[in-house]
Amino acid sequence: MTVSIIGIGLLGGSFALILREKYPKMRFIGVDTSVVNGQLALAKGIVDEVLPLNEAVAQSELVVLATPVNVLMNLLPTILDQLPESATVVDLGSTKGLICDVADAHPRRSQFVAAHPMAGTENSGPGAAFRDLLPGKNLIICDRQKSNADSLALVESLFRDAGMRLFYMTPKEHDLHLAYVSHLSHISAFALGLTVLEKEKDEQAIFDMASTGFSSTVRLAKSSPQMWAPIFDQNRANVSDALAAYIDFLQQFKKVIDAQDVPASLEFMQQANVIRRVLDGIEKK
Amino acid sequence: MTVSIIGIGLLGGSFALILREKYPKMRFIGVDTSVVNGQLALAKGIVDEVLPLNEAVAQSELVVLATPVNVLMNLLPTILDQLPESATVVDLGSTKGLICDVADAHPRRSQFVAAHPMAGTENSGPGAAFRDLLPGKNLIICDRQKSNADSLALVESLFRDAGMRLFYMTPKEHDLHLAYVSHLSHISAFALGLTVLEKEKDEQAIFDMASTGFSSTVRLAKSSPQMWAPIFDQNRANVSDALAAYIDFLQQFKKVIDAQDVPASLEFMQQANVIRRVLDGIEKK
Repeated sequence: MTVSIIGIGLLGGSFALILREKYPKMRFIGVDTSVVNGQLALAKGIVDEVLPLNEAVAQSELVVLATPVNVLMNLLPTILDQLPESATVVDLGSTKGLICDVADAHPRRSQFVAAHPMAGTENSGPGAAFRDLLPGKNLIICDRQKSNADSLALVESLFRDAGMRLFYMTPKEHDLHLAYVSHLSHISAFALGLTVLEKEKDEQAIFDMASTGFSSTVRLAKSSPQMWAPIFDQNRANVSDALAAYIDFLQQFKKVIDAQDVPASLEFMQQANVIRRVLDGIEKK
Repeated sequence: MTVSIIGIGLLGGSFALILREKYPKMRFIGVDTSVVNGQLALAKGIVDEVLPLNEAVAQSELVVLATPVNVLMNLLPTILDQLPESATVVDLGSTKGLICDVADAHPRRSQFVAAHPMAGTENSGPGAAFRDLLPGKNLIICDRQKSNADSLALVESLFRDAGMRLFYMTPKEHDLHLAYVSHLSHISAFALGLTVLEKEKDEQAIFDMASTGFSSTVRLAKSSPQMWAPIFDQNRANVSDALAAYIDFLQQFKKVIDAQDVPASLEFMQQANVIRRVLDGIEKK
């Protein structure tokens, strides 16, 4: 079986690495606009060869779309046009609403599976890909009833073999939840990074005084702007609501601190402490 | 040598654990308003005995004040009153301005050393204490010229033996920097936890959809309200400024997203990416 990875970055590369281990005979073709990324993916053994998009698609039983979501949306109709009759295309994008709209408008919708692995790091590119990114994590598949039985079964079995747990929902549910449990975390980290950088012109002071708590909270501010700008744009209604709610809590807390209202401050944090149960649940996954 | 740990929690307990390893003959007395904490500290081998405050202080060459900062401020004058002539008291509080004001007003100021280890986790109590919390981390000492030579030398050598690097600054500098590199991170995490909990009434959805990025950003929301409320209160002017700057960046970013201004969104995140250099520096420490 031949699999093309379109966009050989953290996610596409990590998916290929775990599949190669499970299926030593599977053939992987890489497609990337960056020549350097292609060479790196070959050198790292992520793919067997690098080809132009149309040549790769023509030879593939499975096409994995793992580019930033703006590129993904533009590529999907072209790929569906060129896709062999019995082949399947799956996307790994972090937004699902617009991409599913694009797919729904295509006559070959049933050859497409909309997927999103709940996994990532703050690093990007094929150099960041690693075997253990996906195993043990969750995969969300949207609108599964719109994919044909064979395409759905292929995608489900490959991701299950990659060690993932499968969940199903609508694109609308997906995008709403993700705004809160992922997109908002990234914006909070980017803004925190900017606030500290603006204040602490002297980076040495941050080195000397920041502890592991700071690193943990700000880590996501290292994430790729090229990947995240289109995610925030495509999911802007939900992200904007989430941000408004977050800013509101921050303003409430600021008021409490300014008013020296220690009991209210305690109450605020005690309510937030409930997240411990949730985080312990996530870590046990 | 006899050392009293007043407040046998994460920080006081971890300090005792590493010192016991370096100085097997050192005797440790624990003081804690919680009977359970005292028993736990004995059972875990953090202290040799648990005594009331005045008995502990009377026998100690070194008193380590490791309570929440509001308690610390109230205890310091009493402890200085009761302290043997050649003994030393050091505090480990996360704010330094008010505590140094209190110390400055006491005739025995020179027996006091104001210190703050840049180390912590989201967990608290003696059960959370561990040997490796302090080694490799930084310690800030404030107003060292106000401590007598023997007290300063004792505190410096013990923390150096605990594997810490020492830095010196004024209480004012300390509190300003800490608002940005620590206190703000905690508030951002508490508010993020509240935002997600408010939206996601169904905790199962968070379990299924949140990834490691979410956990990392929200982790500090598990922190102890009893510890943090007085820190935010004592450092409220700086914390309020930092929060205002942070809210301002979030509002700017929300505007950019609402306006679908992808180039501005990219620019915002590229600037935040500069934090990568800082974080890599912290992780290499």
